[in-house]
Amino acid sequence: MARADLWSIGVDLGGTKIEVAKVDAGGTIHGRLRSPTHSKNRPAMIRAEIVSAIREIQKGSESLPAGVGVGVAGQVDPQNGLVHFAPNLDWHEEPLQDDLKHALGLPVVVMNDVRAATWGEWHHGAGQGFNDLICLFVGTGIGGGVVSGGNMLSGCSNTAGELGHMTVDLNGPQCTCGNRGCLEALAGGWAIARQATEAILVDPSVGDHLLKTAGGQADAITAEIVVQAAKAGDPFARSLIDRVEEALIAGCVSLVNAFNPCCLILGGGVVEGLTELLERIDQGVRKKALAAATQSFKVLPAGLKNDAGVIGAATLATHLFGKKEEGRNVK
Amino acid sequence: MARADLWSIGVDLGGTKIEVAKVDAGGTIHGRLRSPTHSKNRPAMIRAEIVSAIREIQKGSESLPAGVGVGVAGQVDPQNGLVHFAPNLDWHEEPLQDDLKHALGLPVVVMNDVRAATWGEWHHGAGQGFNDLICLFVGTGIGGGVVSGGNMLSGCSNTAGELGHMTVDLNGPQCTCGNRGCLEALAGGWAIARQATEAILVDPSVGDHLLKTAGGQADAITAEIVVQAAKAGDPFARSLIDRVEEALIAGCVSLVNAFNPCCLILGGGVVEGLTELLERIDQGVRKKALAAATQSFKVLPAGLKNDAGVIGAATLATHLFGKKEEGRNVK
Repeated sequence: MARADLWSIGVDLGGTKIEVAKVDAGGTIHGRLRSPTHSKNRPAMIRAEIVSAIREIQKGSESLPAGVGVGVAGQVDPQNGLVHFAPNLDWHEEPLQDDLKHALGLPVVVMNDVRAATWGEWHHGAGQGFNDLICLFVGTGIGGGVVSGGNMLSGCSNTAGELGHMTVDLNGPQCTCGNRGCLEALAGGWAIARQATEAILVDPSVGDHLLKTAGGQADAITAEIVVQAAKAGDPFARSLIDRVEEALIAGCVSLVNAFNPCCLILGGGVVEGLTELLERIDQGVRKKALAAATQSFKVLPAGLKNDAGVIGAATLATHLFGKKEEGRNVK
Repeated sequence: MARADLWSIGVDLGGTKIEVAKVDAGGTIHGRLRSPTHSKNRPAMIRAEIVSAIREIQKGSESLPAGVGVGVAGQVDPQNGLVHFAPNLDWHEEPLQDDLKHALGLPVVVMNDVRAATWGEWHHGAGQGFNDLICLFVGTGIGGGVVSGGNMLSGCSNTAGELGHMTVDLNGPQCTCGNRGCLEALAGGWAIARQATEAILVDPSVGDHLLKTAGGQADAITAEIVVQAAKAGDPFARSLIDRVEEALIAGCVSLVNAFNPCCLILGGGVVEGLTELLERIDQGVRKKALAAATQSFKVLPAGLKNDAGVIGAATLATHLFGKKEEGRNVK
C-alpha cells in the first residue's frame, strides 16, 4: 500500500502551458495549478513561475514532498537534468534541474515529457503490471516511450523512443525532421492538416465541409476539424483518416515486431478523438505482425489522458527520492 | 582476465548445418566440428548428432565445460529452452534444452540463433564495450538483436528483434510473413533474387549478365549472383543494389530513431558481399535520422562473421554456468 503522507510534485512544462500538481504515491492528484507558458519569456522567468506554483501547491500540506519531477518537451541530459534543447521554448543548454534544486531546496529530477507520460501510464495508467509495453502518443507530433524487460529504454544519448520518426513509407511525404515518410509525416496532427489543405488547394470541391468549418480558409483546417468531420461522416475527411489508420497500423506493426511488447498504449488528441481507431489498429496489427509477436498482445487506450505527464514526473520523483524522505519524516 | 580453464561448448543449429565449437572465456575457438543438418531427420536423430559432436569436442580437454549454449533458428521459450517452432527444421514444441541436459549431464541453455550471434558480437566482436547496440544480420532473411542499457531485449513472448519485419514501405512488395513492405521484402537475399527474376521475366534484355551467370535460368538467379554482378559493374545489378541500400537506410533510420543505439553492427552475406554498403548506410543514416540520435553513433561491420553464433551461445553458457563451474573445478 502507498503511504498517505508520501507524495511528490509533478510539473509538465510544454510550449503552451505549465501544469503543476501534487501527486500521492498511489498516483492520485491532490490539487493542481495551470498557467500559460509565455515561450518568448526568458528561462529565468519561466523558472520563477514554476517555483512560485510549486510553493503555492505546497501550502497547507503537513509533510514535505519527497521531491519534484519535471517533464519537458525537449532533449534532457539524464545525468544532470540539463535541458540540451527544447524547441517549443527555444531553450538551449538550460540547467533546469540544478536551478530548481537550489531555488526550492528539494530534490528535483528533470526528464523528457513523453518519457514522463510513459512512466505515468506504466505505474498508474493502462500499463500497470506490464514489464514490456510501448506508449505511442499521437497528437500534433508523434512520440513514445518504451519499457522492455521492466526497464524504460533511454538509449545512447537519451533519445530512445522517437517513434514518430520511424520510416513507414520510404517514398512518402516530407517530414519536418528532414527525412521522408516518417510515421509522423503521415499520421501526426500537423500532417493530417497538411494533407487536407493540400488536397483542397488542388480541388476545393472535395473539402466543402472542412472549408466551411475552417471559415473558408484551407490553411486554417486543423487535424481536429478533420477528425470531427470524419466522425460526422464526411467522405473526404474519412478518406484522410483511413490513410492515417493505415500508417498507424504500419508503424505499430514495426513496433510490435521490433520490441515485442505485451501491450501498446495509444494516447494523444488524434487517437482520443477517434475511439474506433484503437479497435482497427488492434485488428490491423494482429493481421499483419508476426503471429509469435502477438500471442498475448493488447492495444489499450491511455488511461491518464492529459494527466500522464504530471503523474509520471511526480511518480518518478517519489520513486527516486521517496526512501530518503521516509527517513527525513521520521525525525 | 579470462581464466584459461573456463570454457563452454557453443552449438549453432541451422537448417543446413550443425556447428559445434569449444570456446574459451575470452571468446576464442579451440576446435570445432561441422556437419550438415538433414532437416527431414527426426529431432531425435539431430539431437543424437549434436550429442556425439559435443562428446567428440570434449575429448582431450582436461577440465569439464562450464556448460553448453545452443543457438537455434526458431522461437525458443526463455524459461525452459523449449523450441516452440523452428521452420527450417520443421520442429514444433521440442524440449531441446531438457533433452540435451539429460543426455550430456551438463548445464545447457538454448536460445534463438540471432540472439546468440548478437550476444557474441556484444561480448567478443564489434560491440565490445557498448551498452546500447543493435546487430542487424542481412542474409537470405533479415534478423537482429538489440542491447539497450546493458540488457539484451527479449520482449513479452521472447520474439523481440524481428527487425526484418519492420514496415519501411507500406505500399511495398509482399513479404513471406504475409505483410507488405517489410525491410526483408526489399533487402533480404530472397527478395533481391526475386526482384532480379521478376524484372528479367518482364524484359530479359536487362539481365543478360545475370542470366549468363545463372545458366540462362531467370529463377536460378541468387542474391549472391546479383551482388557479384553489381561489384563487376553490371548496371542492372547495380540498380537493384541501389534499391536494397535505400531500404536498408530507411530501416536503419527507424532503428536509430526508435532505439538510439551507440552502434549499429551490420553482418550477413549481403552486407559482407558489398563492403561499400556500410559506408553508404552510415552516411544515409547520419543524413536522415534525428541529429540528437546520431551524436555519438557508429556503423560497424560484424566482427565474428559466421562464428558469432557458436561464440555467442558458448559465451552465454559461460556467463550463466561459469561461476558454478568454478566451484566444481576446485574440488
